[in-house]
Amino acid sequence: MPLLVMKFGGTSVADLARIRNAAGKVMAEVEGGHDVILIVSAMAGKTNELVRWVSDISPFYDAREYDAVVSSGENVTAGLMALTLQEMGVPARSWQGWQVPIVTTGQHGAARFIEIPREAVDRKFAEGMKVAVVAGFQGVTREGRITTLGRGGSDTTAVAFAAAFGAVRCDIYTDVDGVYTTDPRISGKARKLDRIAYEEMLELASLGAKVLQTRSVELAMRYKVPVRVLSSFTPGGSSGGTIVCDEEDIVESRVVAGIAHSREEAKMTLQGVPDRPGIAAGIFGPLAEAGVNVDMIVQNISEGGLTDMTFSCPTDQVGRAERAVSEARARGEIAFAGLVADTGVAKVSVVGIGMRSHTGVAATMFRALAGEGINIKVITTSEIKVSVLIDRKYMELAVQALHDAFGLDKAA
Amino acid sequence: MPLLVMKFGGTSVADLARIRNAAGKVMAEVEGGHDVILIVSAMAGKTNELVRWVSDISPFYDAREYDAVVSSGENVTAGLMALTLQEMGVPARSWQGWQVPIVTTGQHGAARFIEIPREAVDRKFAEGMKVAVVAGFQGVTREGRITTLGRGGSDTTAVAFAAAFGAVRCDIYTDVDGVYTTDPRISGKARKLDRIAYEEMLELASLGAKVLQTRSVELAMRYKVPVRVLSSFTPGGSSGGTIVCDEEDIVESRVVAGIAHSREEAKMTLQGVPDRPGIAAGIFGPLAEAGVNVDMIVQNISEGGLTDMTFSCPTDQVGRAERAVSEARARGEIAFAGLVADTGVAKVSVVGIGMRSHTGVAATMFRALAGEGINIKVITTSEIKVSVLIDRKYMELAVQALHDAFGLDKAA
Repeated sequence: MPLLVMKFGGTSVADLARIRNAAGKVMAEVEGGHDVILIVSAMAGKTNELVRWVSDISPFYDAREYDAVVSSGENVTAGLMALTLQEMGVPARSWQGWQVPIVTTGQHGAARFIEIPREAVDRKFAEGMKVAVVAGFQGVTREGRITTLGRGGSDTTAVAFAAAFGAVRCDIYTDVDGVYTTDPRISGKARKLDRIAYEEMLELASLGAKVLQTRSVELAMRYKVPVRVLSSFTPGGSSGGTIVCDEEDIVESRVVAGIAHSREEAKMTLQGVPDRPGIAAGIFGPLAEAGVNVDMIVQNISEGGLTDMTFSCPTDQVGRAERAVSEARARGEIAFAGLVADTGVAKVSVVGIGMRSHTGVAATMFRALAGEGINIKVITTSEIKVSVLIDRKYMELAVQALHDAFGLDKAA
Repeated sequence: MPLLVMKFGGTSVADLARIRNAAGKVMAEVEGGHDVILIVSAMAGKTNELVRWVSDISPFYDAREYDAVVSSGENVTAGLMALTLQEMGVPARSWQGWQVPIVTTGQHGAARFIEIPREAVDRKFAEGMKVAVVAGFQGVTREGRITTLGRGGSDTTAVAFAAAFGAVRCDIYTDVDGVYTTDPRISGKARKLDRIAYEEMLELASLGAKVLQTRSVELAMRYKVPVRVLSSFTPGGSSGGTIVCDEEDIVESRVVAGIAHSREEAKMTLQGVPDRPGIAAGIFGPLAEAGVNVDMIVQNISEGGLTDMTFSCPTDQVGRAERAVSEARARGEIAFAGLVADTGVAKVSVVGIGMRSHTGVAATMFRALAGEGINIKVITTSEIKVSVLIDRKYMELAVQALHDAFGLDKAA
């Protein structure tokens, strides 16, 4: 029996009516001849309520107890979903993380999978169970403590089960109907993609297109699990949506897949930094230790033995970053003349695996931005991406101009 | 280190403020030199919400999934309580049923304890943990399925842990401040008892004084665990309340401990039953199979080979009882001429271990009721109890008259 993994997010199981709707989609797959492993999130709002309680008790909570509390939301959905499927006549049972057991590391709140043994679930399938409903977002350490994977972890659970059980596909049901060439709220010309490569999805996910969690895409890429993203609110079966897959399985020929943006960026410049070996390590070591997520890094050419070092980070980490470099200077580890923080910038990126073989993407991008009179503050590139920092007020305009410039409104 | 078991019910942990209040009482015991095993219920209202969801999905739900869903309420409280204690500086951790593991039978929704191994919890105490916060009301089968013990099961969990760990006492914190000589809502003269014997408590619990769940009292009696019932809303430590203990530990000399009542009783009479051996089994076998909780049974003297058989049961089981005896008659297993159901009766009982050695309790009771012009419909007695069925409209009057007649407003 071909095995399908399906996953429904919090808004897709927000109440009993939506759980029934989701169960209907699962039943259709069972009737289509699949065994199903069904990963569920907590009912929308439930996890936030639990997190708020924990934070109200203490801002410095024991992460092990946080995990024990917060994981209960998924357990409730799993049981309710199994009951709903049974009521529809579909043989189903729920599994909590420790029952499988989903063995993880002990990094509470951000655990990683060690092992998902198949024996217990496979035995139930052999006995006639058609749907294993598994609580997402959680696991258990070898010592028997409950862990969670961090926000969005249910996507990762789904992909991990698809890999462990050799599923034909992993269908992620959410509140959007697929991956778009850009944010439809910014460009009315945004077009849904039928297929996107893992690496493109990875860049889009990390760049703020919040359709799939980054770690789940990494995992899918590593184990070559085809992932379909689709809406749980569209009637009908599993057609439609966007398939995230290996680039070899993308027949469409195109250079650029989409335009991503990230609004809450800050640009920080350390001025008058002595230009000598080890200076980058001296600066970015303390930033990493302070938990600052440094994204882009640019070093200017040196003048008179001094240089400027510019980096970007999320706006809400600016204070932390300032403290980290100031303290490092006070300890004598680094030297700089001044620190300038610009919290009014945004990042816009062009992403596409076609860039590997096509030149001129960056040039097209810079020309389009120049045509709108938008000044570029920082540039970085990777093999399949060009990103720029610009003034935040031009972000929407930049996205629209780039979407037009690369002809993304037209199917390739 | 002497070990104390404490238990807080749903209203005592209804929100974060009440959890903090309860944690304060636990901390006081730790500061007083105790290790504590702390059993917690779900926050008030949470279990009802979960039960409603399950019932809305299906009236014929899979009890295993019901248990998986409903047990999550206690897990949340356990984690929040551990966090609150930690925040107060008390080393604590939470335990879900499967983590201990609390091994039970597979009767989902009404499971019974098989084993509570001490190893895991004891090891943590040895490492310096002062409070083990345990989710009440739940357990796990040897096959790893979650079970619940049924309503009020957290009391039973508390007593079972006290027995398993040899606790010095089991303190049950609830929303009343102890066990009274009768229901204070019926008699303004009701007086709180300092101590009550297990057997008295058992009779009072089963007779509708809903302070402690019957199974928990049975368990306490079997393992001679002293249980203190006290209010979580009274400031101060663990003094006060009522201690439920072995009768040898009750110094107070008294014949009657209290007056119990039960409002929702029905009296059913099978008329014209052939008076021959086996007839009682023929009637009460089918009733038991139909799940009717038969309480009092009275057989009249025989006239002309026929007798009347009268029994009482809860009013909401009258229909079921009528169907059971009618069907048994249709199958030819029993015979009777008529069936009369009286759903307007109540039960009033006088309870006290002193009755074993003192005569005249029944006579005093009947005289007091006669003095108020109350007619007695059925009488039953046990070693430490006399119960009567009377018209429901006289119930309050009867309780008050009996409370006076046995001088219960005055300490012995």
